[in-house]
Amino acid sequence: MSGRGRSWRRGSSLPDDCLFCKLYREGDHVNATEGFVAIRDINPRAPVHLLVIPQRHVETFKDISAFSSHEAKAMLDFIAETAAHEGLSSYRVAVNCGPDAGQTVYHLHWHILGA
Amino acid sequence: MSGRGRSWRRGSSLPDDCLFCKLYREGDHVNATEGFVAIRDINPRAPVHLLVIPQRHVETFKDISAFSSHEAKAMLDFIAETAAHEGLSSYRVAVNCGPDAGQTVYHLHWHILGA
Repeated sequence: MSGRGRSWRRGSSLPDDCLFCKLYREGDHVNATEGFVAIRDINPRAPVHLLVIPQRHVETFKDISAFSSHEAKAMLDFIAETAAHEGLSSYRVAVNCGPDAGQTVYHLHWHILGA
Repeated sequence: MSGRGRSWRRGSSLPDDCLFCKLYREGDHVNATEGFVAIRDINPRAPVHLLVIPQRHVETFKDISAFSSHEAKAMLDFIAETAAHEGLSSYRVAVNCGPDAGQTVYHLHWHILGA
């Protein structure tokens, strides 16, 4: 299991100055539940492009095991619920993990891309 | 992977004749844990292109809430563990949901795309 504290001390993604920690607290949320929010991507790559941001700060998908069973289910259910809430019938769910996959903010987040 | 069963990639989603139910049981698995297997995509769109297939048959990501908390965590952890097992440092995790998002097999599955 990854130590969730480890990632907090690495790189420039300390929660205190993490963009997505800030947007979790005070962003323009299109949907929200306990521990998770959804916002619109500021550089949309699809007609509907949402980001799902967990409150829990981990840097990348490699640290996904830091999420409890309860959180893992809540996260996945919230993604599907958010897509439905947005009226999407077909959509792609994606996580970019690491610089060579296009990850730009090192706070784990999910993309919802809809037509 | 051979091209076996390609005609099954469309149409019926009944578990009895579902390609991915079959591949769960008897595919060429690159990784496996209880309830989940990983195979190579027969039409890779990246140098490494794996599919993670749950034993539980649901048609699309819209049905993700059918997975228990235990299963949700196991699924996410298995995806990250499979990417690490394959030696990927950067990768994309994606689910295509619905015909307009390119879903071709109606048994929920996750793509792992690595450089």
